[in-house]
Amino acid sequence: MQYKLYYWPSIQGRGEFVRLAREEAGADYVDVARRSGRGMGVPALEKFLDDEKLGSAPYAPPFLKAGKLIIGQTANILLYLGPRHGLTPRSEAGRIWVNQLQLTIADFVTEIHDTHHPIGGSLYYHQQKAEARRRAKNFRTERMPKFLGYFEQVLAGGKGRRYMAGNTLSYADLSVFQLIAGLRYAFPKTMKKQEPDYPGLVDLHYRIAARPKIAAYLASKRRLAFNEYGIFRHYPELDG
Amino acid sequence: MQYKLYYWPSIQGRGEFVRLAREEAGADYVDVARRSGRGMGVPALEKFLDDEKLGSAPYAPPFLKAGKLIIGQTANILLYLGPRHGLTPRSEAGRIWVNQLQLTIADFVTEIHDTHHPIGGSLYYHQQKAEARRRAKNFRTERMPKFLGYFEQVLAGGKGRRYMAGNTLSYADLSVFQLIAGLRYAFPKTMKKQEPDYPGLVDLHYRIAARPKIAAYLASKRRLAFNEYGIFRHYPELDG
Repeated sequence: MQYKLYYWPSIQGRGEFVRLAREEAGADYVDVARRSGRGMGVPALEKFLDDEKLGSAPYAPPFLKAGKLIIGQTANILLYLGPRHGLTPRSEAGRIWVNQLQLTIADFVTEIHDTHHPIGGSLYYHQQKAEARRRAKNFRTERMPKFLGYFEQVLAGGKGRRYMAGNTLSYADLSVFQLIAGLRYAFPKTMKKQEPDYPGLVDLHYRIAARPKIAAYLASKRRLAFNEYGIFRHYPELDG
Repeated sequence: MQYKLYYWPSIQGRGEFVRLAREEAGADYVDVARRSGRGMGVPALEKFLDDEKLGSAPYAPPFLKAGKLIIGQTANILLYLGPRHGLTPRSEAGRIWVNQLQLTIADFVTEIHDTHHPIGGSLYYHQQKAEARRRAKNFRTERMPKFLGYFEQVLAGGKGRRYMAGNTLSYADLSVFQLIAGLRYAFPKTMKKQEPDYPGLVDLHYRIAARPKIAAYLASKRRLAFNEYGIFRHYPELDG
């Protein structure tokens, strides 16, 4: 089946977690809003969001069209794709665990976003810069170590795991790769200081980056560059 | 099977979404941190969070112990319990949809929480009151109408639905009940103004409240009162 992914064409954002899963699986996808032509582009994405008659319209991108199904919420998309792409354990317990990790990653992603938008997404960054400085300081000193420390503990626990769910690569590992990449972009100074505390996560990051399909993806034009419109933004004044 | 729910004993918080599902199902649960005695109370909860050797430790409460499984993240707990408690559609498409709704509710709940804690959960409210005023204003005027409008549209779409997933009661309906109850507590003035725009959600709220098991629960001591330690806090200065 050919999947259609709907996400903004100019940012990695939350869509990147789905794009990474697609790339690792080598699956057949159309990244709708990045294509032009009939039924493509941003208008095709917005059509779904604005469809008041569609009883299962998604709240926001990313969403995935899989046959007749329209699936919203990043973690929900990955929960659906995981077993289809061989990116989650086979047992129910394993799938629940990977979903739990992905939801905790989603919470972390929201907090990363809110460092530059602590008052509201509808305001510009420069309109909430003072609040952003305060929130970013709290984030760097308390939240970042708490989340990264937790994920490191997951890897170190259970007698030392190869991946977040044990010996099976899962989409949670791809997401950890993206977290480290994004945090390095947004908070280079802070990461330089804190990274030595998370050797397991850094090692996992490099192992994922070296996987042939991911490496090819990262070197391709399909991988958008980080920028100051997405979740991970580099504003030096927020990096301490 | 007897389930063990681990959540803070003095607040509704995120645990309430699980408590409501338990009550509607009439299921056998122990609310561990609200009990005293051996293996009970808050220490029993904290033991899991602090267990560095536990490779599948939850990041935060609520979490559920179901036999050997330990399941964290509210939406993940409900995803697991839904089919077991008859609180989700039987089809995969239906379960995906209810999970998607619950994740969107979770996003809304985070934004509700952040109206009083826009800088950080480790700081007191009075330490971030100025920022809270600004964020709450943005929330009341932009975010609340956007989320509630979306959920209202879900109910109105598909030719007018009885429940959020069509004709089947699901845990997403119980969660909508809780959203309306909590918003009325936290933002009574704002809700008085905005509620007429969401007749479907208000009607659903009352229908859930009138269900025999939910009505009995709400009248019991098991239902904790709203207070200024949870997610929904009534600070008049944030209500406009």
